Amino acid sequence: MLLSKLLIPITKDLPADAKIKSHQLMLRTGMIRQSSAGIYSWLPLGFKVMKKIEQIVREEQNKIGAQEMLMPTIQSADIWKESGRYDDYGEEMLRIKDRQGREMLYGPTNEELITEIFRSSVKSYKSLPQMLYHIQWKFRDEVRPRFGVMRCREFFMKDAYSFDTDENSAKKSYNKMFFAYLNTFKRLDLQAIPMAADTGPIGGDLSHEFVILAETGESKIYADKKIFEVNLKNFKFDDKSLEKMRKDFSSFYAVTDDKYKKDEFDKNVNKSNQIITKGIEVGHIFYFGDKYSKPLNCFVDTKEGKKDLVKMGSYGIGVSRLVGAIIEAKYNNEIMKWPKAVSPFDVVIIPSISKNNNENMVKASKIYDELKKQNVDALLDDVDENMSIKFKKHDLIGVPFQIILGSKSKENKFEFKEVNQEAKILSLEEIKRKLKK
Amino acid sequence: MLLSKLLIPITKDLPADAKIKSHQLMLRTGMIRQSSAGIYSWLPLGFKVMKKIEQIVREEQNKIGAQEMLMPTIQSADIWKESGRYDDYGEEMLRIKDRQGREMLYGPTNEELITEIFRSSVKSYKSLPQMLYHIQWKFRDEVRPRFGVMRCREFFMKDAYSFDTDENSAKKSYNKMFFAYLNTFKRLDLQAIPMAADTGPIGGDLSHEFVILAETGESKIYADKKIFEVNLKNFKFDDKSLEKMRKDFSSFYAVTDDKYKKDEFDKNVNKSNQIITKGIEVGHIFYFGDKYSKPLNCFVDTKEGKKDLVKMGSYGIGVSRLVGAIIEAKYNNEIMKWPKAVSPFDVVIIPSISKNNNENMVKASKIYDELKKQNVDALLDDVDENMSIKFKKHDLIGVPFQIILGSKSKENKFEFKEVNQEAKILSLEEIKRKLKK
Repeated sequence: MLLSKLLIPITKDLPADAKIKSHQLMLRTGMIRQSSAGIYSWLPLGFKVMKKIEQIVREEQNKIGAQEMLMPTIQSADIWKESGRYDDYGEEMLRIKDRQGREMLYGPTNEELITEIFRSSVKSYKSLPQMLYHIQWKFRDEVRPRFGVMRCREFFMKDAYSFDTDENSAKKSYNKMFFAYLNTFKRLDLQAIPMAADTGPIGGDLSHEFVILAETGESKIYADKKIFEVNLKNFKFDDKSLEKMRKDFSSFYAVTDDKYKKDEFDKNVNKSNQIITKGIEVGHIFYFGDKYSKPLNCFVDTKEGKKDLVKMGSYGIGVSRLVGAIIEAKYNNEIMKWPKAVSPFDVVIIPSISKNNNENMVKASKIYDELKKQNVDALLDDVDENMSIKFKKHDLIGVPFQIILGSKSKENKFEFKEVNQEAKILSLEEIKRKLKK
Repeated sequence: MLLSKLLIPITKDLPADAKIKSHQLMLRTGMIRQSSAGIYSWLPLGFKVMKKIEQIVREEQNKIGAQEMLMPTIQSADIWKESGRYDDYGEEMLRIKDRQGREMLYGPTNEELITEIFRSSVKSYKSLPQMLYHIQWKFRDEVRPRFGVMRCREFFMKDAYSFDTDENSAKKSYNKMFFAYLNTFKRLDLQAIPMAADTGPIGGDLSHEFVILAETGESKIYADKKIFEVNLKNFKFDDKSLEKMRKDFSSFYAVTDDKYKKDEFDKNVNKSNQIITKGIEVGHIFYFGDKYSKPLNCFVDTKEGKKDLVKMGSYGIGVSRLVGAIIEAKYNNEIMKWPKAVSPFDVVIIPSISKNNNENMVKASKIYDELKKQNVDALLDDVDENMSIKFKKHDLIGVPFQIILGSKSKENKFEFKEVNQEAKILSLEEIKRKLKK
């Protein structure tokens, strides 16, 4: 992609409400544009990042055997009345009347709808366990939307639902999701801590939230450093190993400020292992048994020839929120560096361009074409600006690798830089190898 | 995927309003499930097909240089008041008041929002031409939603927008989209005819709709058979060649019933070349100059140092509608055959299973594992039903290739069948080669 052709409107004057760094960066690099309070359009740069995150989330869901489907954004109020949450939900639910006067709503979550689908589709224990998920836009009419995509009204979320015949089996499904979540965040190059959590309005008796560390996070975190020594690679994808995994993670102290008690922290964690930092919630999982299957009459035939309420869990990851969360974690000292797996481009080529000399631009175009052939997705900065302005701009855009064609590049050797590291002078072949790694 | 684990609720009793065959088939094979009038959930089988169509649409948009982005579903009423369409649109627009009492709406189309984004992002002719697209859910509050996904309320659509400095350049963008559309439908194995069309509520002075042939289509079509001789492969991706392409297609008579005049048809088309059939609209493209840029004050700096209204076009493909349209075209004599490019699975393995003999099931599982290793996405019918029931079911599910393990398969040779063709007895190696083709 040529930078001059990319729709990437750099905002210089930030709105007063852009208070956190992810919100600022996303506006400054034209990743998003607000269309109304808490509602954003995703411009090409932001869209690419979000799509890559979505794909990683999807792959990890598929790996544990969850099936993808898609529920609509607009739901009937009826099933919410059946579950009893229609009145509970309050003003955060966007309520709509259609032209026939029917009560509809923009789904803030999907426990009711998936239960309704399940009860009419699956009748027997033979089809269980079952995990279903979708990645869809949701809406919560926040009274004061803020922090850009971190607390917006229309947001993109993966929500999954598990269905089992009994609690024991349901907890195995829960553990699988626990595993998928940790693998997802690892692939996003984020340090995520699973924390025992309250179940809140979703309900239930077992719940974890996944919090990533970021100094600018919304909630304070108190944790035992040793939790980072639990190595995901030591666990296999079988029920016993996954149960051990959850126990291992749960054995270390890790709480957010609402659960923090100083004496407990000091009693359980050695001073030298105490981490006090901030974090951002990026996922939340729940086991809630028959909380929804009961009011919605969702039964399955059991092996013993009886009927029983299906046991359910639900599992959410904020996909659009993760874009902001990654920035909060990776944007430091005015320099952004996207994790390779979700960077909008694999590499940026930055030639020094002057009116009398287009030699660097010609070289840059050749490199660009060559990389394209190798399926390397490069951004070529063909804009006529001086190099210091360009570097500042790319500090924000955050592509993790740069090929610089300026004073230091010679003949067939070019300046190659991984962001936050020393530049090296390398041949194109060497650069290709570095990028492929 | 094991069929016993796939969420594929086969509906036997069709609702009375399922009148057309795509609606019937999608319910009978559990591709979709209605959640309220004109609003559907996409279950795994239907979802997979829709995603494959979406990806083909995306690739063809990217090929002509359009950039993907994403606009939200909920828009502010303000920009629709600016353009003057807020009152025009009538009850089909789903109007919403948020908790602060602001007038919002669920976007039925996006000319206003994209113009608003463009005017604040692009200032100079240097960044033009520009093509932007997104694939997003839209809502039209149809008074009488019907025909399943063919005329539903919440639907999935690709809409693209082009921005040029002058009409001449804008028509080049129009031709590129024209080309992308024909390539898209070709990859979907559909015969699409571009037809000069009225511009309707979108407005403008140049418009084509793309209609695919299907005997059960909604509109009658009168066309010159010779239009099918225009070969897309004869045109290159340059302005001159694409202009010739559009002219060549436009030189043949092809209209829907609202424009049909018998004497014109007879005058322009030899009796022997006259096709009278039915069709389904799957795409519509428009050039409308400054219809939106004018009320929304969307100017760019011209080369000559002036300011001029940007010239725009818009280009829609109904992605969810295409799922139904493909069924209308490919489901005949009670047998469905998905085009290979969008089939939910590459192949289905159908073993004959009996209680005393699991030999076929063991063989089937081996074949399944072997195909999986080769990245062939197979469906294994592990359900304990007799073969005639299985065959009837797969006639509807429509996977185009079948490996049958019954009386005719011997040792290492299996019955291999392409739907609607004779079965052959082949080795697994030969089958793999056939599937890879």
